[in-house]
Amino acid sequence: MALVEVSIIPLGTSTPSVSEHIAVSLKPLQKSGLKYTITPMGTVIEGDLDTIMDTVRQMHEACFKKDVQRVVTTIKIDDRRDKPATIENKVQSVQEKL
Amino acid sequence: MALVEVSIIPLGTSTPSVSEHIAVSLKPLQKSGLKYTITPMGTVIEGDLDTIMDTVRQMHEACFKKDVQRVVTTIKIDDRRDKPATIENKVQSVQEKL
Amino acid sequence: MALVEVSIIPLGTSTPSVSEHIAVSLKPLQKSGLKYTITPMGTVIEGDLDTIMDTVRQMHEACFKKDVQRVVTTIKIDDRRDKPATIENKVQSVQEKL
Amino acid sequence: MALVEVSIIPLGTSTPSVSEHIAVSLKPLQKSGLKYTITPMGTVIEGDLDTIMDTVRQMHEACFKKDVQRVVTTIKIDDRRDKPATIENKVQSVQEKL
Repeated sequence: MALVEVSIIPLGTSTPSVSEHIAVSLKPLQKSGLKYTITPMGTVIEGDLDTIMDTVRQMHEACFKKDVQRVVTTIKIDDRRDKPATIENKVQSVQEKL
Repeated sequence: MALVEVSIIPLGTSTPSVSEHIAVSLKPLQKSGLKYTITPMGTVIEGDLDTIMDTVRQMHEACFKKDVQRVVTTIKIDDRRDKPATIENKVQSVQEKL
Repeated sequence: MALVEVSIIPLGTSTPSVSEHIAVSLKPLQKSGLKYTITPMGTVIEGDLDTIMDTVRQMHEACFKKDVQRVVTTIKIDDRRDKPATIENKVQSVQEKL
Repeated sequence: MALVEVSIIPLGTSTPSVSEHIAVSLKPLQKSGLKYTITPMGTVIEGDLDTIMDTVRQMHEACFKKDVQRVVTTIKIDDRRDKPATIENKVQSVQEKL
């Protein structure tokens, strides 16, 4: 089980608004059945790392569908093997200590 | 007005658990009065870019307080000047299109 | 053909020096035959995106070998399909305009 | 003394080529006198952290000059206080162990 944050940026679009491109990129994630949450700066996915990486590869590819010629995708893997990390308990663990 | 995501990682800690270090790093942000939200992979801050950057500099510094000798801090600025971007409307804009 | 930057950070290593961990993580890349360059902040790899992503997955896994329980890996893909991008021509393209 | 990697991406530029925008963003760095190296995926700067952060703020601002309305800037700080880290010795430290 890992947590992975993905951020996908299409370059050379005609306007600075790219939420439609982001929505298209999220389709493979919606189909995957993986647990995820959309944040203001990306999408955080929870689950088996290999399954997530396959899905992220499809998300990156999907962004090229809307007449885009260049995509910059940033993927951050937080992989912890001493104890389970989830979307909920990572946030909770910090908030308890504030 | 900009959105900034910050992620602070202390290196060379005795255990892989670093939520106490993260909590200490968040103190300057709590004092700043800036609007923010904690995500599983970082903290997203909304506000004036110069104020945010000053605060992020203090957050990075705060992480050295707990006997840490090396800190890797990642800052992602999303700065849009054609229309206001907020923590709420960025997420909403994507979710409407799904 | 894509360019991919990888940065691998082991957490909970007791000392802030992690170059030995980085060296172990680079072994799968050395075996892959892919073209790469080591920068002060990561490793940039050039080649077929699927081959690179498979290799990066192995690099991430390799970092757990040295008694590490948590690894944070950041992957940035720059994928351009209108014309070839290489390690050399991307740097050159900027330097010509300075 | 810290090492900082900066990557600046303008959005909504009509074409996927952004090296001219990157070149404009590098002007404040050239004037700063700071030591830096251009990599295929960003620019790595070495020096006093406060001076670097001021310069990075100017680099981000410079990117708006060329009729750009949105800029995504990623900054990665590697700040080590137990011993000096430089552009040269960080790469060398890994390469020795390969």
